Amino acid sequence: MTAATGIWPPAATPFREDLSIDTERYLAFCHELLRGGAHGLAVLGTTSEANSLDLDERKGVLEKLIASGISPAQLLPGTGAASFGDAVKLTKHAADLGVKGSLLLPPFYYKGVSDEGLFEFVSEVIGRVNSKRLQLYLYNFPQQTGLVWSPGLIAKLRRAFPETVVGIKDSSGDTQYLDTLLEQFPGFAIFPSSESLMVDALGKGAAGCISATANTHVKEIRALYDGWKSPEAASLNKRASAIRSLIASYPLIAAVKATLGDQHKHKGWHRLRPPLTSLGDQQAAELRGKLAAL
Amino acid sequence: MTAATGIWPPAATPFREDLSIDTERYLAFCHELLRGGAHGLAVLGTTSEANSLDLDERKGVLEKLIASGISPAQLLPGTGAASFGDAVKLTKHAADLGVKGSLLLPPFYYKGVSDEGLFEFVSEVIGRVNSKRLQLYLYNFPQQTGLVWSPGLIAKLRRAFPETVVGIKDSSGDTQYLDTLLEQFPGFAIFPSSESLMVDALGKGAAGCISATANTHVKEIRALYDGWKSPEAASLNKRASAIRSLIASYPLIAAVKATLGDQHKHKGWHRLRPPLTSLGDQQAAELRGKLAAL
Repeated sequence: MTAATGIWPPAATPFREDLSIDTERYLAFCHELLRGGAHGLAVLGTTSEANSLDLDERKGVLEKLIASGISPAQLLPGTGAASFGDAVKLTKHAADLGVKGSLLLPPFYYKGVSDEGLFEFVSEVIGRVNSKRLQLYLYNFPQQTGLVWSPGLIAKLRRAFPETVVGIKDSSGDTQYLDTLLEQFPGFAIFPSSESLMVDALGKGAAGCISATANTHVKEIRALYDGWKSPEAASLNKRASAIRSLIASYPLIAAVKATLGDQHKHKGWHRLRPPLTSLGDQQAAELRGKLAAL
Repeated sequence: MTAATGIWPPAATPFREDLSIDTERYLAFCHELLRGGAHGLAVLGTTSEANSLDLDERKGVLEKLIASGISPAQLLPGTGAASFGDAVKLTKHAADLGVKGSLLLPPFYYKGVSDEGLFEFVSEVIGRVNSKRLQLYLYNFPQQTGLVWSPGLIAKLRRAFPETVVGIKDSSGDTQYLDTLLEQFPGFAIFPSSESLMVDALGKGAAGCISATANTHVKEIRALYDGWKSPEAASLNKRASAIRSLIASYPLIAAVKATLGDQHKHKGWHRLRPPLTSLGDQQAAELRGKLAAL
């Protein structure tokens, strides 16, 4: 199975007033992202508030996406958890459904753990899921987890599990780290988390981009992906990066959802599950104004 | 219901070679801690590696403790989770079993969240568990969670839920924070996480102590608790603090388990679930020697 490439938005999750998942709206949105140019969907990630969903909800979302007609080959769900037991359950469930792969966070409760401990964690997940279908993409987001998939650890994982550990999503924003990965691991499916970094990274062999703002601007980002070598690349890049920078100057997930609320003319999109909170009306209006002016 | 007081060890979890819970050994150990002087057990906390157990295992442990004859009134389980949905399931399960209370971590995936978001998280848990039996002890461990229960937030929670939010376990080791809590919240059940801080804190109104090293030295810590105003207090405190400092000079959970292995003459105690790792043989021997010399 070849690894994923292209634009895989980490689809945001709309909530009803009682904070339950607005499934109908969610499914419609996911189909819209695919029609808008997404190669697939990196569902159930940080922007999706997956770690604010309970384990049953996470499984349910995946089943409903597939039942709605989205091909499992277009899905890269996040299946990480603090315990390997829960990570195994989620990852096996996803693999059994035939997904393209799973994004695996490091176990994010304990801090200061060793590369050896993280290697053992991944080994337990792979050994217990025990599926030839399994393809893992490491999920690097030290700002949330306090942990890093170090290049040394990645090299060790690739040696031990060459058919299974096939890529990484890097949400660190650390370009030096990203460049190190691109340099050291040709053939590894490396996804930066921002379109602002994508063109440079594509030139160095990146697989594509998994970006929060692909929720709101998938067409622009897809055009940039398709046209990064074209004469228009510089202007496409400038515009996509300006949008990204503006949205990311606010709390990112709240700003993405506020913008989705405007785009879909549905106030409910602005809801986040605690501990995250919505943009206030004033911030939302400011963002709206600035986006319109771009 | 009066809040908990005294010594509540966060019982460590023994694992078999396949990393499953060694239930028989675990239950025997918990009974032994109570016979050794523990007032109750703060099970399923950080030292217990609860966040390395899956959700079903966490429920199972609690049910088995009670089935083994331990009174639910002697149990303060950790029931936190990254999502309020999972935290609700665990907390409701524990409350329905009649436990003394639950230790609640803040939702520990997202970082940089607001006090408002944490307040909403706790509100959701309390509202959804919806049990008059529920008593919550906040669990403060910023070194793992990246989050702090700020004094302002605690005050707001106590005002909103005076019958429910009854105490806190503070594992920060930050004596200024601890003193602030003791000063601002008389009547709140405040547990420092180290016997080294206990005597000073008891003098300022603390409820007792929930300490990792109560796994290995419950008698010493209980004697200190009982005798903190006695003429022997200074020497008891000196000895208990020396033991604590020594064990805590190694990775704490691994050092506690290595010492339990020695005390119970069972090598299996040294196992930790990944991402945590055991002390190496050399470190374990060094710790053993230094402890014997104390």
